[in-house]
Amino acid sequence: MEDAARRLLEGDQRTLSRMITYLERGDPQAAGVLKAIDPHTGNAYIVGITGPPGAGKSTLVDRLTELLRSKEMSVGIIGVDPTSPFTGGALLGDRVRMQKHYLDSGVFIRSVATRGQTGGLPRMVRGTTRLLDASGVDVILVETVGVGQTELGVLEVADTVLVALMPESGDAIQALKAGIMEIADIYLVNKADREGANQMATTITAMLQLGEAKPGWSPPVMLTTAQTGQGIDEVWQKIQEHRQYLTDTLELAKRRGSHRQKEFLETVQEEVARRVNSRVEQDPNLIATLEQVANKESEPYSAAMEFLDSSGLDADWTV
Amino acid sequence: MEDAARRLLEGDQRTLSRMITYLERGDPQAAGVLKAIDPHTGNAYIVGITGPPGAGKSTLVDRLTELLRSKEMSVGIIGVDPTSPFTGGALLGDRVRMQKHYLDSGVFIRSVATRGQTGGLPRMVRGTTRLLDASGVDVILVETVGVGQTELGVLEVADTVLVALMPESGDAIQALKAGIMEIADIYLVNKADREGANQMATTITAMLQLGEAKPGWSPPVMLTTAQTGQGIDEVWQKIQEHRQYLTDTLELAKRRGSHRQKEFLETVQEEVARRVNSRVEQDPNLIATLEQVANKESEPYSAAMEFLDSSGLDADWTV
Repeated sequence: MEDAARRLLEGDQRTLSRMITYLERGDPQAAGVLKAIDPHTGNAYIVGITGPPGAGKSTLVDRLTELLRSKEMSVGIIGVDPTSPFTGGALLGDRVRMQKHYLDSGVFIRSVATRGQTGGLPRMVRGTTRLLDASGVDVILVETVGVGQTELGVLEVADTVLVALMPESGDAIQALKAGIMEIADIYLVNKADREGANQMATTITAMLQLGEAKPGWSPPVMLTTAQTGQGIDEVWQKIQEHRQYLTDTLELAKRRGSHRQKEFLETVQEEVARRVNSRVEQDPNLIATLEQVANKESEPYSAAMEFLDSSGLDADWTV
Repeated sequence: MEDAARRLLEGDQRTLSRMITYLERGDPQAAGVLKAIDPHTGNAYIVGITGPPGAGKSTLVDRLTELLRSKEMSVGIIGVDPTSPFTGGALLGDRVRMQKHYLDSGVFIRSVATRGQTGGLPRMVRGTTRLLDASGVDVILVETVGVGQTELGVLEVADTVLVALMPESGDAIQALKAGIMEIADIYLVNKADREGANQMATTITAMLQLGEAKPGWSPPVMLTTAQTGQGIDEVWQKIQEHRQYLTDTLELAKRRGSHRQKEFLETVQEEVARRVNSRVEQDPNLIATLEQVANKESEPYSAAMEFLDSSGLDADWTV
């Protein structure tokens, strides 16, 4: 086995950090290490946390981390910074609150920025969870603001998905309408000390009953006040219930298998894109086509189709 | 020439609507029509408008449309609905304000939703502008909330990019830091009747001077109050100045050529992704690999690389 993989499996945090960086850069060493450690993964439990800005996600992550540490469990935290140029940096600011955990060797914190790598984000997060998993972390918390499809895609890495909302947020209803319902396993109405929390919980419950019921697990709606720690024990208990449910029904293996397949397909697509782009300056045919497209001798959309049909990737392409 | 292309060039709005729908669906008819109309495009001027939620983008679009209509120019409006499940629908709500223009045959309005087609969005918008262009529209306004990289990519369709901000918005500084500066041609401090507007304009100007100066065009910072129409004439005048500048320096053709090349490359990438996905249920090798990936017999990342190397798309792949 590669030396780096061995050190990672021994829990060496510097190797862990370096491998995540390799993964970000697309360094081929990352592929080697991911392959070597793969049989040793699957022990960490992955919890995804999303919700609108201001719902208190970072405080929730903070409190959950405290709870897990008090139970002697090690924690990996992956913060996905939003792509939005208009909200960029907000998460990073919140991260400052996590400072106390930086000194705790039982907590590993990593921010994954989305700028400039929209496509690669879900794959990056998946690879990072496997590296954390191999290094012996017990629970991985993936926090994302869920700005777009890409960020929602990130949550497809998680075994259990928490959606945090807050009272009096009209956004919540939008969120429920816009596809969050399909991925949530547990709803939290955070900042439950504020007016309207019960009302909010009732509304969500009512909306959930209106939607098509998932067979099996009915996502509960829980009240929390992360600021004071109120309800955090119960959330962790509910996460464990969900884990038990997934294990009993064999859903966990199925879910994880489907996540792995998604990662494979996404990696293929990204890598094809990368290989096409790397030809732009080398392949004389492609250079000529690009010239024609720029000069209006060729129309971009139809030229792209013709380019593919004349390449190895025509409609009859098989592997 | 195809019948649909001919009708489009005659300005038939029903054909226009249908072709945009074909484009959304990936219907091959769209490619044929885009190819046929391509030599007849390039007359429309494309203005992109972005900014954080609440900056008054829709009102700006509304006012600009009024102004252009009063000058007997026809207008195409493309509204890009944000991907965010937490802000989804906001733009659509704003669109209601545009209702008066729906009755005006000189205004064509189309919303492009981002949900479920993150990848295809910039290409969709580019294709739509060419269809609008061919149908004889004079000015195309592309409005996007710019939530993520994808939405920023949409603006690469535009000849002139307006960035709308508002006073007392801390977000603005984030926006400037996070890459908006690279794409803005004109800054608007909208809602300029509010306190802090001048301060905001001064801050932006100062930040622009700190950044690396683009040679040639220095993006101006303008004060507007779209609600009352204050400053809109001046904005249109500045857009025309920018157009003149781009034309005089031959930048316009260069910018448009580079946009076309981007569209070609993106289309290639998306289409490869589509073709890979379409093989998932047919290609026995791919089916076997996916099975192994799910069962942990293969690791997703390295399996993806091996899959590509064994396909026609290895590192030596040429067209």
